[in-house]
Amino acid sequence: MDIKINKIGVMTSGGDSPGMNAAIRAVVRTCAFHEIECVGIYRGYQGLIEGDFKQMNARSVNNIINKGGTILKSARSKEFMTKEGRVTAYAKAKEEELDALVVIGGDGSFTGAMVFSQEFDFPVMGIPGTIDNDIYGTSSTLGYDTALNTVVEAIDKIRDTASSHNRLFFVEVMGRDVGYIALNAGVGAGAEEILIPEENLGKERLIESLKRSRLSGKSSSIVVVAEGDKTGENVFELKDYVEENLPEYEVRVSVLGHMQRGGSPSCWDRVLASRMGVKAVESLLEGKTNFMVGIKDTKMVLCPIDKAVKGKTDINLELLRVSDIMTT
Amino acid sequence: MDIKINKIGVMTSGGDSPGMNAAIRAVVRTCAFHEIECVGIYRGYQGLIEGDFKQMNARSVNNIINKGGTILKSARSKEFMTKEGRVTAYAKAKEEELDALVVIGGDGSFTGAMVFSQEFDFPVMGIPGTIDNDIYGTSSTLGYDTALNTVVEAIDKIRDTASSHNRLFFVEVMGRDVGYIALNAGVGAGAEEILIPEENLGKERLIESLKRSRLSGKSSSIVVVAEGDKTGENVFELKDYVEENLPEYEVRVSVLGHMQRGGSPSCWDRVLASRMGVKAVESLLEGKTNFMVGIKDTKMVLCPIDKAVKGKTDINLELLRVSDIMTT
Amino acid sequence: MDIKINKIGVMTSGGDSPGMNAAIRAVVRTCAFHEIECVGIYRGYQGLIEGDFKQMNARSVNNIINKGGTILKSARSKEFMTKEGRVTAYAKAKEEELDALVVIGGDGSFTGAMVFSQEFDFPVMGIPGTIDNDIYGTSSTLGYDTALNTVVEAIDKIRDTASSHNRLFFVEVMGRDVGYIALNAGVGAGAEEILIPEENLGKERLIESLKRSRLSGKSSSIVVVAEGDKTGENVFELKDYVEENLPEYEVRVSVLGHMQRGGSPSCWDRVLASRMGVKAVESLLEGKTNFMVGIKDTKMVLCPIDKAVKGKTDINLELLRVSDIMTT
Amino acid sequence: MDIKINKIGVMTSGGDSPGMNAAIRAVVRTCAFHEIECVGIYRGYQGLIEGDFKQMNARSVNNIINKGGTILKSARSKEFMTKEGRVTAYAKAKEEELDALVVIGGDGSFTGAMVFSQEFDFPVMGIPGTIDNDIYGTSSTLGYDTALNTVVEAIDKIRDTASSHNRLFFVEVMGRDVGYIALNAGVGAGAEEILIPEENLGKERLIESLKRSRLSGKSSSIVVVAEGDKTGENVFELKDYVEENLPEYEVRVSVLGHMQRGGSPSCWDRVLASRMGVKAVESLLEGKTNFMVGIKDTKMVLCPIDKAVKGKTDINLELLRVSDIMTT
Repeated sequence: MDIKINKIGVMTSGGDSPGMNAAIRAVVRTCAFHEIECVGIYRGYQGLIEGDFKQMNARSVNNIINKGGTILKSARSKEFMTKEGRVTAYAKAKEEELDALVVIGGDGSFTGAMVFSQEFDFPVMGIPGTIDNDIYGTSSTLGYDTALNTVVEAIDKIRDTASSHNRLFFVEVMGRDVGYIALNAGVGAGAEEILIPEENLGKERLIESLKRSRLSGKSSSIVVVAEGDKTGENVFELKDYVEENLPEYEVRVSVLGHMQRGGSPSCWDRVLASRMGVKAVESLLEGKTNFMVGIKDTKMVLCPIDKAVKGKTDINLELLRVSDIMTT
Repeated sequence: MDIKINKIGVMTSGGDSPGMNAAIRAVVRTCAFHEIECVGIYRGYQGLIEGDFKQMNARSVNNIINKGGTILKSARSKEFMTKEGRVTAYAKAKEEELDALVVIGGDGSFTGAMVFSQEFDFPVMGIPGTIDNDIYGTSSTLGYDTALNTVVEAIDKIRDTASSHNRLFFVEVMGRDVGYIALNAGVGAGAEEILIPEENLGKERLIESLKRSRLSGKSSSIVVVAEGDKTGENVFELKDYVEENLPEYEVRVSVLGHMQRGGSPSCWDRVLASRMGVKAVESLLEGKTNFMVGIKDTKMVLCPIDKAVKGKTDINLELLRVSDIMTT
Repeated sequence: MDIKINKIGVMTSGGDSPGMNAAIRAVVRTCAFHEIECVGIYRGYQGLIEGDFKQMNARSVNNIINKGGTILKSARSKEFMTKEGRVTAYAKAKEEELDALVVIGGDGSFTGAMVFSQEFDFPVMGIPGTIDNDIYGTSSTLGYDTALNTVVEAIDKIRDTASSHNRLFFVEVMGRDVGYIALNAGVGAGAEEILIPEENLGKERLIESLKRSRLSGKSSSIVVVAEGDKTGENVFELKDYVEENLPEYEVRVSVLGHMQRGGSPSCWDRVLASRMGVKAVESLLEGKTNFMVGIKDTKMVLCPIDKAVKGKTDINLELLRVSDIMTT
Repeated sequence: MDIKINKIGVMTSGGDSPGMNAAIRAVVRTCAFHEIECVGIYRGYQGLIEGDFKQMNARSVNNIINKGGTILKSARSKEFMTKEGRVTAYAKAKEEELDALVVIGGDGSFTGAMVFSQEFDFPVMGIPGTIDNDIYGTSSTLGYDTALNTVVEAIDKIRDTASSHNRLFFVEVMGRDVGYIALNAGVGAGAEEILIPEENLGKERLIESLKRSRLSGKSSSIVVVAEGDKTGENVFELKDYVEENLPEYEVRVSVLGHMQRGGSPSCWDRVLASRMGVKAVESLLEGKTNFMVGIKDTKMVLCPIDKAVKGKTDINLELLRVSDIMTT
């Protein structure tokens, strides 16, 4: 592609996550720095189809780096999943004279970007924004670190009351079909058990493990359950099973829910978002397209967007072991 | 009663709440200050029956003022509800040479204290520790202020994602059969609707109000639901009803649960706990018994413990009005 | 005064405090509720003089209840202290057809309001917004509760490192010439000493007390120093004095500074601000003027603004005693 | 070295940092898991010299993963810097039958470990615990992430009042002679200027840059100053210089101080500490010595302890550029 980039559109798409605003700010200000135009697209692909645009300059993004959510709002667009929808979207993009798109979102959003780019030879660049950390090609997605802190702070509070009452708590956390949040927040919160989709212990071993934990002198226990875990049908069914088999325990369930998606981003997520925004825009200016920006160790990297979508990162087995050792 | 008080027992009973540790610390140190003995009783009345005691001095309570939960643990005791149980408890108290009891807990715990005191002519003093704020004779109970902040911070996070997605959120909060937490946290979080047991709008008016709110230009809404509210059978049934009647909204439910019971106490709860602990011990030393310590405006007060148990504080109607005006 | 109120101006003046935005929101929405107009005045009295106004409606104050600072900005105006300045201000007010003024600020701001009201027979209503809690006629000012939590959280962190190293920490907190923040946050943080302007111990007794604390087995100590305290010339001079006289201690100084003025308001401050905003507007509508809105226990009250300015609340001696007992 | 490891001593040394307790817990529990003994050494090398030991088991470290500071306390030991001191230390270690030492601390502590190991052929393993992130061989030190969040939250609060008043704030942050905290927290907090020791702009360019920022429409500014920065003699002298040269600005100084060293560790720091503790003990069990445990991207690594001490990580120039672009 040899298009000169004069105007970039930026959107947030799919589930929102802390750090999205910081990334928007970075995209907008990097455009300003390089003296090209930047257009905010509201409500993701749906807003692109509807031409819901707003010209943005460096001042439009004042005081948003510390805000959760996304000032551009987010949505899932069924229309964009049709060829017709995408044709309209392309027409709107041309009408607005957009030369490239920065999409902040998760793998669903990247699939959309990839298809759009291929169909219309349109430059796109992805920034991974999801609390689930389930994207290949980056060690960390925007919002993941903040969500971990939110979960750990909530479990710290639950533990106060758990240890006051000799209770067993099941805490369900987000993460769709992967266990990143559960595993890391579980280790961080000192959970006695962590149930993740990647490793199914089975109900019987859960009971045995809880018995062992009680015998070892622990009077209360926290079990972190990933929402995608399949040990029980769901966390409430699991509670019933445990209460039947361990009648000495009073079990309580906490479903943390959408508070995990919000909150002021952690320093890590803000810095990562700022670096990713710069990298995304400057990569487009260098003529690159169809990549996702990522971080590996301390460095910014690019990953072909199709690999980001299709690739699978295996769960960190070392961390599972750490969890086992910590619950000795 | 004309007993010289040389040794005081202190316990936490019923549901735990932030500030209980600060109150224990204050009771222990006030005893030390007045050079009398203090004994910690573990697991409330059950520990009294079982003689689960620990001698405490000023250093035993170092570094607990900022901790949630209760280092003395808490429990509900079925045995203490029987005459036999209380006779054993009294025997243990005599054996340990306890001259008086400070009970930190809610109305159930105070009922126990009252009965115990009457049956055995034993000096007791109550400190109101519950997040629900449902005790007559004090403007604020220990843990209530902290719980309000916990709820408001959680809803702030939920609002981030609610406003990013044009969604309707139902947030269930604690409070047993009263609406203090729901009403105050609802106003504090800027909730669009607050459903409390004290004022049943009815489902139809909820739907109308949500429609009005949408027409007024609000794209997302938070509805705070007290756990004791009876607008729907429960918050999930309410969600179904609303989704049926307002199909344009995607409804999400968040049940905040036990995190509301824990966490480092707010400054208010720590100071209140410290003042109440001093007042409880010094009132016993002055020969008073069967009172609960409370706060009215900025001053410590005493309330006969039977009034504390039986009295009813009406919900603040002014605050309901404030909520209505704020959601104009 | 028998003026019909159709349009109210609202401003924040003097030092800002958490809860000011929540109060602005409440004033604006109460005006909307009663279908009268509301105008935001930027930068306090200076903005009134310059006619820096903005028409506000219920939607202008969306999503600010949880924000620190003030969207109307604040300033101190030298011009308004002159008769000439006030004449201009009055002319601007008339030009804008303002019928009354709600001033959110501290005693300096209220003095201005009082003079203005007297000179031009202009209806004013005050809302006490300052972290210092140094206003007569209310048990709590907006921002005070939030500032206490900020200070206590900071000292909790400092204590971590203090107890790891056997160190003595001097923490200077705000409060101008009163000791409310120091005394309450000091008790809340479990400080070993609290130095406030209202009660000067003298340096020698500080040294003795620190010696006693060390002998009692405490290996680290936190001393909270009100900025208005006169035990030393300032906190750094005090540090030098202590290090000279207690060479076994390494002393560290922390000046918390302006972070005490910001942050998301606590639930208490948000609810208080909402109630005060409603009360201020509705009192004006009832024909009242020259009052400050306050809270006594759980009820809204009005206090003549001149009493609010001139009155003095004595420091709570009971709390000083509590602090002494707690450091047994 | 072919010693069988049966008993490991663990200590924290130098300045404390959040995550040290989580690391102690991990070391203790990994020993328990492998059924070897673990001894806590109080107050770092000084406690080793004095034989200030405590046998530890899995239950000794309950409920400390979320606590700031260090339960083993920390200190700097002058005695250990002498050969004589180290000889005594070695004698005490032999007397206690310690086979190896895990030292949690910074480069000063590692230098001590290295010398001790060489002089007495004694197995040591280092865990990097310092908020400064100034250790070669790991991308992140324990406590660094938590300190960044503490700084960013404090600056968020300061910004509230800065933007309410059109003020310029200088915020001094820790970091000894490197600028990691300042640079990352500065970017995370959206600071207008970041002054670090690694890149001296000079006072004149600071003034120019602040002028430019004002012209671009910003009414308030935050300047983050690393404590090791040499733009001015210190932050107060810098304030005077700026006020002289930019009289339109009111400048305020905030020295965040030791609160940066404390607080409940972030999830990242807790997980990192847990992994490092496991790695340290298991590496010793595999016969390795004289290494420091580190993290590179998502993996645990070992770095020869002399390299960790002598190596230098250059500051991330990309991040400096990001900061420049963000303040467009």
